[in-house]
This record gives sequence, C-alpha cells and structure tokens, in this order.
Amino acid sequence: MSDGRTIIGIDIGGTKIATGVVCGTRVLERVLLPTPADRPKEEVLHQVFASVDLILERTGHHIEEIDGIGVVAPGPLDPRTGKVLYSPNIPALRDIPLARLMRERYGRPVLVENDANAAGLAEALFGAGAGYAHVFYVTVSTGIGTGVILGGKIYGGRTGMAVEAGHVTIDYEGPLCNCGHRGCIEAFASGTAITRRTKEKLRQARAPSHLLDLVAGDLEAITPIVVGEAAQGGDPLALEIVEETARFLSIWLGGMINIFDPDIIILGGGVSQWGDLLFPRLRQLTPTYSILPRAAEVAIVPARLEADVGILGAAALFATP
Amino acid sequence: MSDGRTIIGIDIGGTKIATGVVCGTRVLERVLLPTPADRPKEEVLHQVFASVDLILERTGHHIEEIDGIGVVAPGPLDPRTGKVLYSPNIPALRDIPLARLMRERYGRPVLVENDANAAGLAEALFGAGAGYAHVFYVTVSTGIGTGVILGGKIYGGRTGMAVEAGHVTIDYEGPLCNCGHRGCIEAFASGTAITRRTKEKLRQARAPSHLLDLVAGDLEAITPIVVGEAAQGGDPLALEIVEETARFLSIWLGGMINIFDPDIIILGGGVSQWGDLLFPRLRQLTPTYSILPRAAEVAIVPARLEADVGILGAAALFATP
Repeated sequence: MSDGRTIIGIDIGGTKIATGVVCGTRVLERVLLPTPADRPKEEVLHQVFASVDLILERTGHHIEEIDGIGVVAPGPLDPRTGKVLYSPNIPALRDIPLARLMRERYGRPVLVENDANAAGLAEALFGAGAGYAHVFYVTVSTGIGTGVILGGKIYGGRTGMAVEAGHVTIDYEGPLCNCGHRGCIEAFASGTAITRRTKEKLRQARAPSHLLDLVAGDLEAITPIVVGEAAQGGDPLALEIVEETARFLSIWLGGMINIFDPDIIILGGGVSQWGDLLFPRLRQLTPTYSILPRAAEVAIVPARLEADVGILGAAALFATP
Repeated sequence: MSDGRTIIGIDIGGTKIATGVVCGTRVLERVLLPTPADRPKEEVLHQVFASVDLILERTGHHIEEIDGIGVVAPGPLDPRTGKVLYSPNIPALRDIPLARLMRERYGRPVLVENDANAAGLAEALFGAGAGYAHVFYVTVSTGIGTGVILGGKIYGGRTGMAVEAGHVTIDYEGPLCNCGHRGCIEAFASGTAITRRTKEKLRQARAPSHLLDLVAGDLEAITPIVVGEAAQGGDPLALEIVEETARFLSIWLGGMINIFDPDIIILGGGVSQWGDLLFPRLRQLTPTYSILPRAAEVAIVPARLEADVGILGAAALFATP
C-alpha cells in the first residue's frame, strides 16, 4: 500500500500512543507510550516526538530513510492543516498544528487524519474491504468512529471532517451523548453505552446474574468484553444487552445503507470481538431497517487489521490508490 | 448543461407526468398529462409514450433531432437497468424496464434516475449549488427526497440507489413511515406529516384557530401551504407547527452535516415555500445539532429551479460535468 516505502505510523489514542515503522503492509516494529491526555499541550507533543525518536532508535532507521510520517487522532481534525479541532477524550490535543510542528522537527512529509477515517482506509486498501469501491467502516469501542472510503479514497467533504456518523441520532430525545446531543448511536451502542446499560440492568435485576459473578460483584469492572463472555455462557441479562445492541446498531446501519448504499460494512473495535454473538444478528436485522431493495446483499464483516489498524491506518495515508 | 444538445426530460410524478424539450438550460415547451398511478403497468407506460409524442408534435421536432431522453421517477430505481424497483406512490411503475422500452420505441439514448437525485444534479450544475463540490439536496413535498452531488456527479453507491436520506430515523420508536419503518424524518417533516401533525393539534386545540377559518372548518383542506399562510398571519398553532418542523429538519440536517460535511444544503419542494418562516430558523438551529466545528458555515438555501426542476433534472442526466 505504501508501495515499498518506509512510513512511520502514529496512532494517538486516549490512553496510549502507538507508533510503528511500516514497510508495505508490514509493521516492522512497535512502540507504546502512555498518552498524557490531561497534561498541557507541550507534554502530549513531546510524547509524540519521544515515540518517533524511540522507534527510530529501536529500528536503527535514520530519519532520512523515512518517506513520510502519518498521524491519526480521534475527533474531528482538519487534515489540510493537520490541526486537531476538537477532541473530547484528549483535550490537550486541541488546536495543536501537529503536521506543521512535526514537519519542522523531522523535515519529512507529514499527513494527519481522523483515526476512524484512516482505519477505514487501511481496511479498504488491504483489509476486509480490499477490492470494494464503496466501503463503510465503523469502529465500536469507547466511542463510535466511522469512515467512508470511495474508490480507495477517504470521503472528507468540505473541510475533510465528514462522516462523523457515530453522531447521528436514532432518538432525538434519547440519552445524552458525550458530544452534547441526544440519542446519537454512540450514546446507545458504544462500549461506554453498553457498560452503562448493563450496569442499569444489573441494578434493576431481580434474579442473580452470572455477569456479577464474573466481576466478583464489582459493577465497576463491567466491560463489553465481560458482557460478551457472560452472553457466551448463556446469561439472560447479558444476552439481552447483546440483542439490544445489535438492534440499535442495525437501526442505524439500515439508515447508513439508505444513505451510502455501500458494497461492504466493516465493523471493528472492541465490541466487534462479540463475533458470532453479534455479526449473524446484524446481518439478519440490518436489511430489515433499510428501504433499499437489495440491502441484504451488503456484506457486514469484522475488521481484519485489528491490533495494528491505528499504525497501518496512519501509514496508509501515504498510499496511492 | 446539456451542451446545446436537445433533450426530452420526463418527470413521472404521483399525479402528473411533466415532459419538456430542453435546450441548454431552457425548457422550450412543456406538456402535462395525468399519471394513471393505480392503473395497470401498460397504461402508465402508454401515457409516458403519449407525452413524448405530444411534445414532439407541439415543438415540431422530429425524434432524430432529439439527442437523448431523460426520465425521472420517485422511489429507488436502478439507473443502470432503468428499472423502477419500488414506488410506493406509483405502484404501476414497479419493475417496468423503462429505459429499455423507451430505447426500443424511440431509438434514442435513454437515461433513468431517481427524481430527487436528478433534481439535486440540476440544482448542483446550474441552480443554487452551481460552483460547489459537495451538494446535499432535499425536496420536502409529499415525501422527503434527497440527493448528494459530488463534483457534479450524482453519488449513487453500489447499486445507484444511494442517498434515500429521507428514510433515516430520528426516533426509532416514532411514527410509522410510508416505508414501513418508524421515525424516518419523512414521517415527521414531509408535507404529509405536517398535515397529519396539524390536524392532530387542531383536534386537541382548546382555543379557536385562524387556521380553521382559512379552510372554512374543513380539516381535510389542511395543507402545508395553508399552515404557512396561517403562520404568516401569526396564528399560534400554525407557528408551533412551523417551529416543530424546523426543529425536526434541523436535528436531521445536523446529522447529515456530520455525515456529508457539504458545502451547501439546498431545500426544495412545497414546504420550502414557507420561505422566511423556515430558512432563518433552519440556519440557526441546524449547526447546533452538528458536531463539526465549522457546521455554521454550511449554506442552507432554497432551491432555484422549482417549477421545472423535474424536467431540468431529467435533462441534466445528459450533462457532462
């Protein structure tokens, strides 16, 4: 994808900065550093610099051997100026002109992109979406990130910030979302929302739940992964949460098919690890929420590049489709 | 737009078939025939043929002088085969291979497209959207039709049937839509929905409404146009309907900005005639329902080609952007 070039891919997440040297579609070496998310801007920036310096040291590459540096981060950002405009989970990232500062320091080409768009690009070019012209990518983890890749290119719209489809409401009077609006699909079906809904159900439950045993009675230890385990074991409450989540996602994905009529929907992120608990149900329900006569033909598949998708996405920004 | 070529544009609507001869962006002559919507397929088809024969007769054109025939119709249709796949308002249109049958009869190139997509194309090429790269078009009349025009081309997705954004839910437990799903924006803010909501409010109203005077007490005479008139006159109930409609549309348009990040939103159809009652409020509210930092920059404007948009849209299918 990067045509044999050597690219540094940097994935700035809410808790860690993952950095890798990528050659073709292979990650040669990885470095993980914590994200000083709540610290002043300078510290986040210095941690990004530190991760580049460290990976160069580890791989023995000289900066002149690097053909480009790709950076991805959550939230709407302006890929044209490389500036993160709004980042609810990493406030310190806001308004940092990342691309310029990195270009100044390293003297190499730098591209910056929203993490979900870049992950979608990597999946579309050499993951689950390879060979498809219209790819809808969604990652369901802490939040819900989305990207649309048309003919091997990220659809960016007017400002390069398009396809924040996790913030489309399915109930305008629904639960409050992190973004400040009501009923976004993120407020129903993100990892955070799944955890919240599970805790609510557990508090109201009359019968004992296997789910509580799994976390030794500690509600704060509930995660979507634990819910998945309990559902796998046949726990009724966990199965109910999975079924509701599948329904919320299908209502929303049905609308996304009406809008984008994609060839394929690729679902990644932690919640996609529900695997066979989730995907068959999504495939069954989603077409029933679409009005397109051939909606049932749209493939709904798990992402393929999971572990390295951030790094590979950042490197894919240098791909020429 | 049609580069000086002479095109016949045919707009098959729920009640009438509007046909015109278009040269450049000018409609030279128009013919209106009723749509035999509930009659057998053959009669609809014969009425379309009759309208072409009639307009040729009226303008004195010989069929060989016509460079192409464009046909638009509501509902998802397959522009590649020219077949209407689903048409709730004109059941007789369903599964007619329009393009093939017209090609056989007239021996001219025939292009078929969803009416809202074609109208959006005409607006994008030489209407309110001229010069913009990312155009979101919406027509609010009986139903809500939408089209997205990117770089002068209709975005069609996998099957050419994309952007049925009128059928995106804003309340998955909301009112039942014509399409069979719940809470589509069409079920809240289409002309039909506005009329329904107004009647409901009038039935529950305690105070006498100026609106009822306008229709001489006949609830069945309520239309969005009447509601607009009453609102213009300061009628509180009508103003409430307009405000609610603006809010529903803004919630939905905020989501559409999050998805498409367009340069411009063009709103046409009967309800757009509410004009200054509606547009300033849409411009005010819509950005508050988007998470994109620059959502307030997206222009929200009335359509320009109103009367002839169907015919011009059909002819625009032959335009080369």
